[in-house]
Amino acid sequence: MISGLNQELADNFGIYIKNQALLDEAFTQASYVNEHPNQGLKFYERIEFLGDAVMQLVVSNYIYRRYPQMPQGRLTRLRAAMVNENSFASFARECHFDQYIRLGKGEEKAQARQRDSLLCDIFESFIGALYLDQGLDSVVKFVTQVVFPKLDEGRFDEFFDHKTELQELVQKNGSVDIDYRLLNEEGPDNDLAFQVAVYVDDKLLGKGTGHSKKHAEQNAARHALENLKAEE
Amino acid sequence: MISGLNQELADNFGIYIKNQALLDEAFTQASYVNEHPNQGLKFYERIEFLGDAVMQLVVSNYIYRRYPQMPQGRLTRLRAAMVNENSFASFARECHFDQYIRLGKGEEKAQARQRDSLLCDIFESFIGALYLDQGLDSVVKFVTQVVFPKLDEGRFDEFFDHKTELQELVQKNGSVDIDYRLLNEEGPDNDLAFQVAVYVDDKLLGKGTGHSKKHAEQNAARHALENLKAEE
Repeated sequence: MISGLNQELADNFGIYIKNQALLDEAFTQASYVNEHPNQGLKFYERIEFLGDAVMQLVVSNYIYRRYPQMPQGRLTRLRAAMVNENSFASFARECHFDQYIRLGKGEEKAQARQRDSLLCDIFESFIGALYLDQGLDSVVKFVTQVVFPKLDEGRFDEFFDHKTELQELVQKNGSVDIDYRLLNEEGPDNDLAFQVAVYVDDKLLGKGTGHSKKHAEQNAARHALENLKAEE
Repeated sequence: MISGLNQELADNFGIYIKNQALLDEAFTQASYVNEHPNQGLKFYERIEFLGDAVMQLVVSNYIYRRYPQMPQGRLTRLRAAMVNENSFASFARECHFDQYIRLGKGEEKAQARQRDSLLCDIFESFIGALYLDQGLDSVVKFVTQVVFPKLDEGRFDEFFDHKTELQELVQKNGSVDIDYRLLNEEGPDNDLAFQVAVYVDDKLLGKGTGHSKKHAEQNAARHALENLKAEE
């Protein structure tokens, strides 16, 4: 039995998985089952299959509602930025899931515990276990704490275009002028900082800084979006 | 406004979409919106994005529970057999969704209404609209009428291996002998029919016929599975 995990889940997320067997299954790799035969152990893969689909829906539903103007193509790219091995592995680490995985000795030696692909699987199988134990609402509650705040922290910004989002939002009722103006440029040549302001129909909506004009514009657009949402 | 569809949904599936605007959006292609500017029309793509994820979860959840011994790899293949353009297009036709799509004139001429890719999109966008209007339970109710019965009708049999499923089921508590025996072979050379019986530890569990031994064996395994499930 995997112990300590439920306590940590309760402390950090207000979650308690009632079915301990399910939690054990979700954190057990096949290599561990092979080394402990005849104990009726199960490994995580089936639950991971389910957890993967649960995450797809929970993330799709969230971004569909949060970005009511975003076209399908960008929704799909944003979802792909959020639902992938790299980001799931980092969520698993943040939740300390790596500490609780049951691995065979060979896999342990091969440092599988730190491997993104395994951590991603375990994040999905945890989601699957939570879904089976408590239903979709509990998953939404957990993901709202662990995943969605990363959108606001800019974790997916590489894939995420605030300038386009701002344009979609302000132009939904017709054409407007959007203008990015360089306010300032300072610092040594190898560490320049740009400050940019964004004006919509000559009204200042946001400011942003960055080490390139492009970055500063993205930050200004993001700032403008925050201001517009605060006004709603 | 798309009329008639809600009546047909009510008659055939006991479903009524309360939000007519959502239903209109789900059945409207971009080409129609382009031909009718300034009417505030929306096309189906965003709802389809959501419906795709809804279907993935609903199907995953169903096969996860229905086949408790099936390993992840086969679950994934079965889901792919059920959740794809070809099968969704056929479900859309069965539901007469093709009759209700709003298309631009060019697309109509190009016979887009009969195109699998469009029909698949529309099936997904309908699922998305149903989900937004009434939640996941209503989608499950609909899919239980339209999609899941096809599993029993053998629609996904090409991708679905009853012999392996039978083996997994009867061997879950240890090794047993599974034996397929040819009972009969009859008909003209160009239309031979084989009859096969499957025995598990020398007990007759099922019989099947087919135009090849392989097909007859699959049908015998399927028959055995039905018998075993009836006994449960």
